Amino acid sequence: MTQVNPIELSATEAVRKIRTGLLTSTELVKACLERIDQTDGQLKAWAHVDAEKALAQAAEADEIRRSGRPLGALHGVPVGLKDIIDTKDVPTERGSPVFFGRQPDTDASVVERLQDAGAVILGKTKTTELAFVHPTDTVNPHNPAHTPGGSSSGSAAAVAAYQVPLALGTQTNGSVIRPASFCGTYGFKPTRGVISRTGVLQTSVSLDQIGVFARDAEDIALIGDALKGYDQRDPKSYARPRPAMLDGYQSEPPVTPVLAWFDLPFADRMSEDCRAGFEELLTALGGQVERIDAHASFADLVETQRVIHEYEICQHLKETFNQHWDKISPTLKPVIERGRTISTEQYEQALGQMQEAEKYFAAFFLDFDAILTPSAAGEAPEIGPTTGDPIFCTLWTLAGLPSLSMPLMSGAAGLPIGVQIVAAQEEDDRLLRTARWLISKLQAELAD
Amino acid sequence: MTQVNPIELSATEAVRKIRTGLLTSTELVKACLERIDQTDGQLKAWAHVDAEKALAQAAEADEIRRSGRPLGALHGVPVGLKDIIDTKDVPTERGSPVFFGRQPDTDASVVERLQDAGAVILGKTKTTELAFVHPTDTVNPHNPAHTPGGSSSGSAAAVAAYQVPLALGTQTNGSVIRPASFCGTYGFKPTRGVISRTGVLQTSVSLDQIGVFARDAEDIALIGDALKGYDQRDPKSYARPRPAMLDGYQSEPPVTPVLAWFDLPFADRMSEDCRAGFEELLTALGGQVERIDAHASFADLVETQRVIHEYEICQHLKETFNQHWDKISPTLKPVIERGRTISTEQYEQALGQMQEAEKYFAAFFLDFDAILTPSAAGEAPEIGPTTGDPIFCTLWTLAGLPSLSMPLMSGAAGLPIGVQIVAAQEEDDRLLRTARWLISKLQAELAD
Repeated sequence: MTQVNPIELSATEAVRKIRTGLLTSTELVKACLERIDQTDGQLKAWAHVDAEKALAQAAEADEIRRSGRPLGALHGVPVGLKDIIDTKDVPTERGSPVFFGRQPDTDASVVERLQDAGAVILGKTKTTELAFVHPTDTVNPHNPAHTPGGSSSGSAAAVAAYQVPLALGTQTNGSVIRPASFCGTYGFKPTRGVISRTGVLQTSVSLDQIGVFARDAEDIALIGDALKGYDQRDPKSYARPRPAMLDGYQSEPPVTPVLAWFDLPFADRMSEDCRAGFEELLTALGGQVERIDAHASFADLVETQRVIHEYEICQHLKETFNQHWDKISPTLKPVIERGRTISTEQYEQALGQMQEAEKYFAAFFLDFDAILTPSAAGEAPEIGPTTGDPIFCTLWTLAGLPSLSMPLMSGAAGLPIGVQIVAAQEEDDRLLRTARWLISKLQAELAD
Repeated sequence: MTQVNPIELSATEAVRKIRTGLLTSTELVKACLERIDQTDGQLKAWAHVDAEKALAQAAEADEIRRSGRPLGALHGVPVGLKDIIDTKDVPTERGSPVFFGRQPDTDASVVERLQDAGAVILGKTKTTELAFVHPTDTVNPHNPAHTPGGSSSGSAAAVAAYQVPLALGTQTNGSVIRPASFCGTYGFKPTRGVISRTGVLQTSVSLDQIGVFARDAEDIALIGDALKGYDQRDPKSYARPRPAMLDGYQSEPPVTPVLAWFDLPFADRMSEDCRAGFEELLTALGGQVERIDAHASFADLVETQRVIHEYEICQHLKETFNQHWDKISPTLKPVIERGRTISTEQYEQALGQMQEAEKYFAAFFLDFDAILTPSAAGEAPEIGPTTGDPIFCTLWTLAGLPSLSMPLMSGAAGLPIGVQIVAAQEEDDRLLRTARWLISKLQAELAD
């Protein structure tokens, strides 16, 4: 019998094996560390890996199991964290020379949640500069001449390259969904306010959200449940119950889901192969997808997102930009300069438009289970000055909607293309239920 | 068909009815508020009830259900909070004139957890002065001439009197288990570090723990799961997975549990009826209980607890005592004066003894599922200068062990007497499993 290399296991499978004693966390973490050793010279997905600390956590997870004490939902499973998420034992440098050597003295809230779930913090993954436009040196695991996407570049690449089964990123525009699409993993950005951002670099209080990467859709639900929780220190966190994601994923839709496909005003930014792939997908789904005209406001909402994002990053990081302007990249500088020209009135108007968008989608989802839409404009472009076009994420992020990228297609160059579905706020459970239905339907179509 | 008054429902039953639409949170909260109106003139269990705010929360819980958004584990169920637990919308006065009118600007961590679970914060329950020796004016719901116990007096009385199905208290010595025993409710103090104390008055960083009251054992498990969680701001909170309490409660013991009964060095403090009741209980349990000589250190450990508790409260509340000595009760003053004479050496020695006790019990529980022991010395005494003798809780609290008081006996005056079981640290799930077995075994014995 061939022994499966533990790096190939999904988190769900790994936890099951660890719980039943068929695998130890130490074996799994060692295998991941070895994989990183072998592949990260080229991939450059990791900013910091402290093998000793990771192995100590794995040994503790194994000792807990041996002693019969409680096991967590992610017991013994290694997780990578985007390097803007504070960790008190490992530096958090935010992809910027301004923060070289920065060592926080507390963990982010999501790190507490992971530890409570028994996860092992494997290390910190590379981010674009301040989680914004200027790329880091991570490459696409499918072709090193191409970008992995950003800003959660390292998290997407590390999961895709089997260096770790799960990783956390953040999204302010398309920074989880796009790299997931480019690297061929699942990527999930939950409803605004589901996961606490305390201890994570704030680039936009209105838009930033934590997201996750995995190679398996069930893993997304598993870690989503582990991370969610109300935190009054996060101004967007809400004091209400949160979706039961794993229950949602594992449940059957009561009736066949109905999806919406928008003919988006920026659809011409899709590549030919991407467009052709989606036409094929729409045909395969037949009557389950309704094609709908985009609302007149959609084109303007892209600008709305830009105004909020740029205005807020200039506010939140004012000190950083004032004191360390010389250490800011030439890619980011013009964006910040433009952001500084946004007036309070423009910003407040944009916040109003964001609220209108939320209202529009709240009503819209009374008739649909999910929106079907590209995750990105196409395959990962070659490495260049940015990490690709986020526009196919912008509206949903602005409206605070949960969205999932699924690695279901590939393009002309053989690189992955993600299929994104988007659901109503606070219906992350239904999003995952619809995703499971969609994946199994498409797999059946492909088998025909 | 007679309509059940919603106040009689357990939290478990109420959530089930609310989820399925047989009851609204508004109906339940209104019924509790009406019950408080009718009974609290005499009982005096509540420090603050804001009916309008509670009804607004209930209306929100009902609206969430109507709109199909996620429901929490305690969806729509009202909860009372001991008035040392900070609430940003309701004063938190800590049972002391020093803090009259004190209005915190943030919620305690446990309040966040409750809101995340969909619970309604009904109000604040009366505590003894600074959660220590000097009684408040709450009376025992079974006989107003008797104490409800303390320091979580109002929480125990309110649950026993059907004013609310669930309430939170705290325990530093016996402040959950003893009032639960005196009032005839279930009372649960989990393993040290399971529930965060952030935002709760600190009287002893080493010993304080959050506990809960309910009229049903399953409710204890339900709210225990909702409250647990790692919080690095609490120095005793631990970064490991926590027991799955409801799973524990609902599971069957793999073999018949074995209990230990210690002949405690302070057993002579038990009342005659209490002693007789336990002799009968031991007979009923037959071979499932082993009588064991108390360890030689047990008598000393009572002093160990006192040294830690008194030394730490003098440190934590130094400012309060220095600035407001005239507002401190004559009951508490001599305790604080005594605490101030404890040297750092004595304190550090006591911390060492506490560690030894933890080690002793870690080894002890390799052979036993739980310790069986009285919750208190007997029935609730008549109202007097204190709220009764906590000594039957002292050792287990000191050693950080999870403990549960079950309302299974009554005394000569017809007042409740609690049966306490105590388990190994981090085995709160096994404690609840053993409790369910014990309750059903004793009910079967009684039926014979």
